[in-house]
Amino acid sequence: MPPSSSDASSAEGPEGRERPREALLTIPRGVAQVDFQSSYWTGLIFVIALFVGGWQFGVFGLLGTLTATVTASLLGVDRNRVALGLEGFCGTLVGVGLVLYLGANWMTVALVIGSAVATSVLTAALRTVLEPYDLPTFTAPFCIVTSVMVIGAPSFERVWGDHQNTAAPSATDPGTAMTWHDFWRGFFNGIGQVFFQDDWYVGLIFLIGLAVASRLVAAAAAVSSLIGLLVGWWLGAQAADLGAGLYGYNAVLTGIALAGTFVALSRVGVVYAAIGAATAAALTAGVTDLFDVVGGHTLTWPFVLVTWVFLAAVPLMSRLARAG
Amino acid sequence: MPPSSSDASSAEGPEGRERPREALLTIPRGVAQVDFQSSYWTGLIFVIALFVGGWQFGVFGLLGTLTATVTASLLGVDRNRVALGLEGFCGTLVGVGLVLYLGANWMTVALVIGSAVATSVLTAALRTVLEPYDLPTFTAPFCIVTSVMVIGAPSFERVWGDHQNTAAPSATDPGTAMTWHDFWRGFFNGIGQVFFQDDWYVGLIFLIGLAVASRLVAAAAAVSSLIGLLVGWWLGAQAADLGAGLYGYNAVLTGIALAGTFVALSRVGVVYAAIGAATAAALTAGVTDLFDVVGGHTLTWPFVLVTWVFLAAVPLMSRLARAG
Amino acid sequence: MPPSSSDASSAEGPEGRERPREALLTIPRGVAQVDFQSSYWTGLIFVIALFVGGWQFGVFGLLGTLTATVTASLLGVDRNRVALGLEGFCGTLVGVGLVLYLGANWMTVALVIGSAVATSVLTAALRTVLEPYDLPTFTAPFCIVTSVMVIGAPSFERVWGDHQNTAAPSATDPGTAMTWHDFWRGFFNGIGQVFFQDDWYVGLIFLIGLAVASRLVAAAAAVSSLIGLLVGWWLGAQAADLGAGLYGYNAVLTGIALAGTFVALSRVGVVYAAIGAATAAALTAGVTDLFDVVGGHTLTWPFVLVTWVFLAAVPLMSRLARAG
Repeated sequence: MPPSSSDASSAEGPEGRERPREALLTIPRGVAQVDFQSSYWTGLIFVIALFVGGWQFGVFGLLGTLTATVTASLLGVDRNRVALGLEGFCGTLVGVGLVLYLGANWMTVALVIGSAVATSVLTAALRTVLEPYDLPTFTAPFCIVTSVMVIGAPSFERVWGDHQNTAAPSATDPGTAMTWHDFWRGFFNGIGQVFFQDDWYVGLIFLIGLAVASRLVAAAAAVSSLIGLLVGWWLGAQAADLGAGLYGYNAVLTGIALAGTFVALSRVGVVYAAIGAATAAALTAGVTDLFDVVGGHTLTWPFVLVTWVFLAAVPLMSRLARAG
Repeated sequence: MPPSSSDASSAEGPEGRERPREALLTIPRGVAQVDFQSSYWTGLIFVIALFVGGWQFGVFGLLGTLTATVTASLLGVDRNRVALGLEGFCGTLVGVGLVLYLGANWMTVALVIGSAVATSVLTAALRTVLEPYDLPTFTAPFCIVTSVMVIGAPSFERVWGDHQNTAAPSATDPGTAMTWHDFWRGFFNGIGQVFFQDDWYVGLIFLIGLAVASRLVAAAAAVSSLIGLLVGWWLGAQAADLGAGLYGYNAVLTGIALAGTFVALSRVGVVYAAIGAATAAALTAGVTDLFDVVGGHTLTWPFVLVTWVFLAAVPLMSRLARAG
Repeated sequence: MPPSSSDASSAEGPEGRERPREALLTIPRGVAQVDFQSSYWTGLIFVIALFVGGWQFGVFGLLGTLTATVTASLLGVDRNRVALGLEGFCGTLVGVGLVLYLGANWMTVALVIGSAVATSVLTAALRTVLEPYDLPTFTAPFCIVTSVMVIGAPSFERVWGDHQNTAAPSATDPGTAMTWHDFWRGFFNGIGQVFFQDDWYVGLIFLIGLAVASRLVAAAAAVSSLIGLLVGWWLGAQAADLGAGLYGYNAVLTGIALAGTFVALSRVGVVYAAIGAATAAALTAGVTDLFDVVGGHTLTWPFVLVTWVFLAAVPLMSRLARAG
C-alpha cells in the first residue's frame, strides 16, 4: 500500500537517530495501513476505536500487528515496508477477526500468533506473484489465513470449544424494509466494519482517524459507504444487514483505493471508483453465500477481488492512469 | 479471440470512410465472437437464432453486447479490439444468461447493463494477467460475472422475485438409457447450448451461421458436439442431460478453439483438439456438481479452464504449435 | 522437481548407449519423484511398498506412471524431464488415488489412462504459468485431475457403480484422546499416506526407500511427520485421523521440499521448513472441510499450496535462499 505519509517523521526513515521511537511507531502505522494510511496519529485513533469497540479487539489487534511486523523483520523483509506499517496491517485484522470468531482465550492467542506469522509469509509470496502486474497484496493475506482458520476450526476440539455465534443480523431480524435508523447506523458501520465493528460511534471514530490523515480519503470513505448502502438497498438486501454496515465496508475500502490512492484522480477516474465501490457492494452477497456453505466469512474478499480487477484493467484503458 | 475475419470489410478498420456502418457492425460481430468468428453475417444469423429461441434472448443478448462494447469504447480500450467484436461477446452471453435465470423484467435490464460494464473491466484485467502467457480471456469474464450474480441473487429480494426454475432436465426425467431421439437432439443442442438454447432447430441455425464463416469451423463444432455426447454417454451420464446438449457445448467451444483457431492444424494437433473436447465434456459433471452446492451454474467454465490449460501447455510440446 | 540424482547412471542422460534400460528406469524414477527423488532404487522400493499395501495400488500406480510418461514423450516434452521421472509421478498418484476411490475395475483402468494423459497436459500448462515465479508444479496436476474426477464421478453411473467408502477413520471412531498406539502408527502412516497407504509397515518401507536416496531426506520426512502429528494433536484433531497419518503426509512433503530440496539449508531455513510443515498440517482440516461439502478429497492440496507460498516468499526475504 502506498506511502501516503502525512507525518514528516516517516521521511527520516528507520535509520534515523530515533530508531527505538521509529520501531514503536511501526505498530500504529500498521493499524492505519488497514485503510491505506501511514500516519501514526491515524493509527492511534484506530487503536482507540478498537478499544472502544471492546478491549479484546484492541489487545488482539495489537498482538497480531506486533507479531506480523516482528516476523517480517526477522525474515529480512525490506525495512522501508516494515517502517511504513505495510507488514503489520494483515496481522491487525487477523487478531481482530479471530478473537471475534473464536473467543478471547489462550488458544486464540496462540492461533493469532501463528496466523500472523503465516500472513507475513503469504504477503511476501503474493508480492512475488503480483509483482509483474504491479498489484498490491491488499488484505488478501488476512483473508486467506482467516478463511482457512475459520473453515478448519470446527475440526479442532480445542479451537472450536469457545467459538462465537456470528450469524448475520438478518438471521434473527429478517425483512428488507430499511428504516432511517438502519440507514444512518449503516453509514457509520460501513466504515467500522472494515475492522469488524458494528457500533456507529466506533465507525465515527474511524472516520475521524481517516480525516486526520487526509480529508479526501475521509470523503471517499463516506461517499463509498453511502454507495454500498444504496446499492444493497436498491437490490433488496436484508435491512438488518444494511444497518450493520455489511454492504458498506468493502465499498469503503474499494472507494478509497480507487479514488486517488492507486488510480489517478480525474473525472473518469472518480466514476470508475464509484463503479468499483458499487461492484464491491453487489459482490458481497455472492461471496457471503459462497462462504456460508463451508462456514467461512465474507471478510474483505469482495474489496480485494474487485480492486485487483479494477487496477489490473487500468493499463489497457487510455482514459485512466495509475496514481503515483 | 482471433481475427479470423472472413469478410473483407473488416480489413478496412474502423477508421475507414464508413465509420457509422462499421460501428453498427460491431454488434453482430460481438455476437459472432462467442464462437470466435468476426463475420457480421455469422453474427446476424446468430441473432436470428436467438430470436427464434425466444424474443427475450435476442433483446437481452443485444442489450448486453451493446453495453459491453460502448463501455469498452468509453474507457478507451484499443479500437481494433472493439471493431472486431472482441469487447462485445461476453456481454451477449451475460444478457442471454441473466434473462434465462432471473426472468425478463426491468430489474434484469438494469442487472444486464451493470454486469456488461463489469465484463468490460474484467476483460481488460484478465488480458493484463494472461498477457505474459499469451492466453486469450475467452468467456471467462462472462463466467465470473454471471456466477457471482447468480450465486448472490437469492440474497436480494428484488432480484430473485422473478427467478426461473433452471434445474437440469434429468431432475424430472432421470435415467441413463440414451434413445435415438436424445442422440440427434443432443447433437444440435450441443451447438445451441453455447448460447443457452435447447431447441434442436436453434442449434441448426447456429451451425449454419458457423458454416457461413468457415466450413472447417462448422465441421470442428459438429465433430466436437458428437465427442461430447459420446464421452458423456460412455461414462454413464443422464440421458435427458445428454439430449439437452449439456455435455456438448463446452466440447464444441474447446474443439473450435483447439482445431486451427489457436493451435495450428496438424495430425497431432487434431488429436490434441479431440482430447481437449473430450476433457471438457468429462469436466462438465465436476463443475456442475461444484456449482450445484452454491446455486451456481456450469456456464462455459469447463471450456475456459480446459482450453487455457491445453493452450498454456503448447509451448513446452515440440509436436504442437500455436496458430497465427 | 529437482534433479537430486543420487545414482550415477542418470548423469549419462537418455541419449547414452543404454537407451532401452534408461527408458525402463524412467518408470521407477517417476514413482520416486512423488517424494522428489530421482533414484530408481528408491522408486523400486516404493513400488514394493505399494504392492505390499495392495496389488491394485502397485498395478494402477505403474499404469498411471507409464501412461503419463509415454504421453509426455509423444507430445514432445523435454527429454531430460522425462528421463528424470518428472513426467511420471503425477500419473502414479492418479493411479493409486482413483483405484482407491473408484475400485479396481476396467472402467477405472480407462479413467486412469485418461486422467494420466490429462496430468501430462496440465503439467506443461502449469510449468508455463509458474515459470516466471520459478515454482515447480509439485503434485498440483494430480490434485486438480483427481479432484475433478472424484467430484464429477457421482454424475456418471458407470464410474460410480463400484466406488469405495472412503470416509475418514474418525467417522466410525470419534474422539480426540490420542493413545500411544495412535501415536506410533500415525508417525509411520504420515509417510505412507503420501501414497494413500495406512499400514504402518508400508510407511516404514517408504521411509527405507527415502533413506536409500538420502539420509537427510529421510530425517526431514520423519521429523515432519512428527510435527504434523503434534500440531494436529495440540489443536484437538480426531485421534483416529491422527493415527491414520492424515495430519502427517502433507507436513512430510512440505518438510522435505523446504529442508534442503528447494530452500537452501541454514538455521533460519530449517525453522522456516518446520513452520511450513506445521502450516501444512494446520491447513489440512480447512481443506478437508472444503472438499467434504462437494465430495472431494484433501489429497496433497495443503502441501502444494503451502509449499508454493513458502517458496514464492523466499526471494523477498534476505535471510533465506533458494537451493540449487
